[in-house]
Amino acid sequence: MSKNKKKLFIITGVAGLVGSTLLPKILSKKNSIVVGIDNFRLGKYKFIKKFLNRKNFVFIKADLDKKINNSKFKQILKSHKLEEVWLLAANSDILAGVNNPKIDYRDTFLTTFNFVNLLKPFLNSNTKLIFTSSSAIYGNIGSEIHEKSSPLMPESNYGAMKLALEGYISAYSFSNKVKSFIFRFPNVIGTNLTHGVIYDLSRKILSTSKYLNVLGNGEQCKPYSSAEEVINCMMYFTKIKNSELVNFYNIGTNDKGVKVKEIVKLLIKKFNFKKKIVFEKKIRGWKGDIPFYSYSTKKINKMGYKFKLNSLQTLKKTINNISKKTLF
Amino acid sequence: MSKNKKKLFIITGVAGLVGSTLLPKILSKKNSIVVGIDNFRLGKYKFIKKFLNRKNFVFIKADLDKKINNSKFKQILKSHKLEEVWLLAANSDILAGVNNPKIDYRDTFLTTFNFVNLLKPFLNSNTKLIFTSSSAIYGNIGSEIHEKSSPLMPESNYGAMKLALEGYISAYSFSNKVKSFIFRFPNVIGTNLTHGVIYDLSRKILSTSKYLNVLGNGEQCKPYSSAEEVINCMMYFTKIKNSELVNFYNIGTNDKGVKVKEIVKLLIKKFNFKKKIVFEKKIRGWKGDIPFYSYSTKKINKMGYKFKLNSLQTLKKTINNISKKTLF
Repeated sequence: MSKNKKKLFIITGVAGLVGSTLLPKILSKKNSIVVGIDNFRLGKYKFIKKFLNRKNFVFIKADLDKKINNSKFKQILKSHKLEEVWLLAANSDILAGVNNPKIDYRDTFLTTFNFVNLLKPFLNSNTKLIFTSSSAIYGNIGSEIHEKSSPLMPESNYGAMKLALEGYISAYSFSNKVKSFIFRFPNVIGTNLTHGVIYDLSRKILSTSKYLNVLGNGEQCKPYSSAEEVINCMMYFTKIKNSELVNFYNIGTNDKGVKVKEIVKLLIKKFNFKKKIVFEKKIRGWKGDIPFYSYSTKKINKMGYKFKLNSLQTLKKTINNISKKTLF
Repeated sequence: MSKNKKKLFIITGVAGLVGSTLLPKILSKKNSIVVGIDNFRLGKYKFIKKFLNRKNFVFIKADLDKKINNSKFKQILKSHKLEEVWLLAANSDILAGVNNPKIDYRDTFLTTFNFVNLLKPFLNSNTKLIFTSSSAIYGNIGSEIHEKSSPLMPESNYGAMKLALEGYISAYSFSNKVKSFIFRFPNVIGTNLTHGVIYDLSRKILSTSKYLNVLGNGEQCKPYSSAEEVINCMMYFTKIKNSELVNFYNIGTNDKGVKVKEIVKLLIKKFNFKKKIVFEKKIRGWKGDIPFYSYSTKKINKMGYKFKLNSLQTLKKTINNISKKTLF
């Protein structure tokens, strides 16, 4: 048994946008067994359905904020070599966590804190933890955020819990001598949307309301990258041989982003929406919204990685791919 | 009632080193009512005993990681004006949290996370949150740590949970429009010790063991300030009128600190210890120990505050004041 141990890959939040886009890439790795975990609170069954019959895929429906009591999972952990843990489970709906901090605490913090603690006995010197953090940890720094920008004063509970986990994963890496990769995401979009501006506005447009209300005044301007591209980027950096114990990168394009009002224009064109559009007067879409930021990508560029599409190209591609079928 | 509302001050971790040193200063404020909370996990009854008969002091024994169900406390919150909340409750025993991350999670993270959430309905525009953070949030940056030093990659669970709370308090301030003050402590010492190098070594010396074992090789060199001085400093900054919504400071002296082996010398002299001293071979006293750091104090100096005693003076004063009575 021990000589033919398969490599074990785990993806938490496997039914989300990033998880479900990542899944086929990991399933295609040789000699791999892939455990995907989700509770479908935000993730969607339809995004992973077609992979459920793959021989090397084990799906577990579980709330990771609680203790997992799944004997099959324990057996898999015991009998395979833990290679990569993709910690993607999170509350990605920032707005939902604004008034109720327990949402980000439960769905972002506890899901990862509890899960990495459970993995401790199964770590080996090759195990890699891959954690998706966020620009939200920087708070309202504005343009050209680089990896050492400071102070880190998040304004949303979402950003706070992502920062909390960065700290915990850092300490975990040092105390368990296990490599970790922290990727600070921009806005990430793609066909399998579960949340965010395009998802929300498209669903409003496709519903029967008399008008389209937009959060904020439409001037908010942020960078967008696709799930495909952030995954390619993460796979590139996790393969680098002489990486540090704790690695951290801002990932995405370094353009200034696209305004919400431009996104609205693209969507009303796509869906041929003719009704009234109502903007709010305030610049922030919600408490804790960071209306403007852009990433310096010098660090990833220097290390040989560059995103192919800019924010506008990514938006156009995603908007082209979404449909009533993907959105509802 | 409403016209004569008293100002309410709350101190969590009131029976600890900082809490019990702070308490008489807050009790002496005019028109004040002071609620102190502790569970005596690290804090000591004897440090607050003499204040229990003060008319404006209400002591509550409670585990803040759980829900407080104290009707008297709720009544006090409802009927007074919440002025300052000193969030001092924490696991200050870094070493204890090294192998069991649940200790820092429970005693540091949850005690503050749950408590500030409970306070939400009672906040007013003058309420100030005062949180004691730590140099441990910076990880192993080395000399001359300033407030914008980065990245923040803590190596201990203690540092991770302090960083987690900085992030959460920041988001809390923005979403509730309430001022917060984050003070990143150096090693803080004083007569009412409950943990740390002097406490541990002195208790070992005063016990009957045949030799004194020191964690690490004695070359670790860190700055020390007294509870008195950090409290004076915090009171100075929380009084500044044009402060930001979220304020953060490295506080302490900016000397290079004192080596552990020098502290050992001071202690064996004080206690007339004649037995063998055994150092370890490694530089770190424990996993996650940051063996060297010093603070840049330019920010607090520019704003008019300077610590009076350097690390060595502070150590000598504390070592002079401690005794079998204070330590056991």
